[in-house]
Amino acid sequence: MTQLDTIHIGFIGLGLMGKPMARNLKNSGARVTLSNRSKAALDELECEGFAIARSPAEAAANADIVICMVADTAAVEAVLFGAEGVVRGCSKETLVIDMGTTEVEATRRFASRLNDLGFEFADAPVSGGQIGAVNGTLSIMVGASQVNMKRSLPVLEVLGHKVVHIGEVGCGQIAKAANQIIVGLTIGAVAEAFALAQKGGADLEKVWQALGGGFAGSQILELHGRRMIESSYQPGGTVKTQNKDLKQALQLAAAHGVDLPSTRLCQELYENLIDQGDGELDHSALFRLYSD
Amino acid sequence: MTQLDTIHIGFIGLGLMGKPMARNLKNSGARVTLSNRSKAALDELECEGFAIARSPAEAAANADIVICMVADTAAVEAVLFGAEGVVRGCSKETLVIDMGTTEVEATRRFASRLNDLGFEFADAPVSGGQIGAVNGTLSIMVGASQVNMKRSLPVLEVLGHKVVHIGEVGCGQIAKAANQIIVGLTIGAVAEAFALAQKGGADLEKVWQALGGGFAGSQILELHGRRMIESSYQPGGTVKTQNKDLKQALQLAAAHGVDLPSTRLCQELYENLIDQGDGELDHSALFRLYSD
Repeated sequence: MTQLDTIHIGFIGLGLMGKPMARNLKNSGARVTLSNRSKAALDELECEGFAIARSPAEAAANADIVICMVADTAAVEAVLFGAEGVVRGCSKETLVIDMGTTEVEATRRFASRLNDLGFEFADAPVSGGQIGAVNGTLSIMVGASQVNMKRSLPVLEVLGHKVVHIGEVGCGQIAKAANQIIVGLTIGAVAEAFALAQKGGADLEKVWQALGGGFAGSQILELHGRRMIESSYQPGGTVKTQNKDLKQALQLAAAHGVDLPSTRLCQELYENLIDQGDGELDHSALFRLYSD
Repeated sequence: MTQLDTIHIGFIGLGLMGKPMARNLKNSGARVTLSNRSKAALDELECEGFAIARSPAEAAANADIVICMVADTAAVEAVLFGAEGVVRGCSKETLVIDMGTTEVEATRRFASRLNDLGFEFADAPVSGGQIGAVNGTLSIMVGASQVNMKRSLPVLEVLGHKVVHIGEVGCGQIAKAANQIIVGLTIGAVAEAFALAQKGGADLEKVWQALGGGFAGSQILELHGRRMIESSYQPGGTVKTQNKDLKQALQLAAAHGVDLPSTRLCQELYENLIDQGDGELDHSALFRLYSD
């Protein structure tokens, strides 16, 4: 693993993903200062020897790189530009990296506002779930200038096994939207396939085993298909987050005049799942629409 | 590779899949007698040293195992029970294996008719496409009694790297229907994701590269995603076949009272693609609905 001894990172957002990511950065030798809205996660990580800040501004003070890993676009905006936001603490040329899944238009707007203040910005959303966050095997899609890509690479390589520079600011989020479409719709595909196999009288375990080797094989079948068979829906990624990501992808599609009927239908199905009270389950719980 | 020196196989159907499968069987040492509706493929394989029959009945004569690899349910019925069909040539206890994608109800009916005549039947549809057929790396889903599973295994292991006994006769076809749902819908997922990424201004090559490592990773993204990027739609599996398979899956779902909205929509999209004249292209050409 890359050694980051000389880097000071402000890390904001200690959810399912953020917490293990912060740990991997610290284990690589970086000095990591944490900020989080709720105190419980901060207390836990303080015991592990992290430096704790009282605000995003304080986490950003003296940081070379600030990483945001918060829930949604509104949260990113609050963390960056709120009363005690990152921009109040940044030094000149601090590089802010948003690793959450954020709207593309907002991403470009945030980058522009930060640039106006003399700060740098990159979007670097991830795929691979909590497992990838824990193991440092995330797939990371980067939207950044060449210079900022180069600056962020040593840090990102600690967090992921595949870091791809997709293009300028915003392109990381475009790739992530594409990623979330494939993830959400593939879960939908496996759910309908399993529903048919089950009602048809085939043993799902055997079907899962057989399909893994052919063209139907995927990360989703392997992992989320398994969860469907075991009715084990502890997240992972939640239904609510998947639904939010698909909505965002559909907004982006609408802005570019692209019609995505399968994505629209899939988002409606996730919405139905939230309506029946399953929003906090793993997104593989889409199978419950068919199996209950 | 298993050696099949003592086995005599009647092989019927020399399409994209059947031709390389017959070659692999012959290379493993089996005696293979071929039958096919059109003469061109027979002439080609006669030059390679295969025995040629003038009818399915003749191909089945003296065969221990008869393999059918023909286009659809109607073709299976004709090959088995037509004027010069397999049942006119079979000896007692000949095992007929249907490796095509055939309706589940018809499969059970065919099995019952063969049993009444003293013959055995198994359904063993495959996944993995022409590449899998050529390399002997198909995934094979078997519906058969324990005895017939055991009889067919040495032969099937020559053709595939994963042979799973799903259950009784018909269960192979149920698993295949599930497989085709996942394949068709995952192609749809990748097509919509790529459409969004492309219109959003991201480089598809980079997006493909990044997504392969995370939860969006699949055989379909790897292979069919590549075909979309290169607009290279030589089949593989055709749009028409994918459409037929999805229709069959929907019929099976209807018979069991299962509603599969995503599968229904996806089948309509493939139908649109056929309507615009793309039925003979590889099924990854679904991307043309979005990119043209």
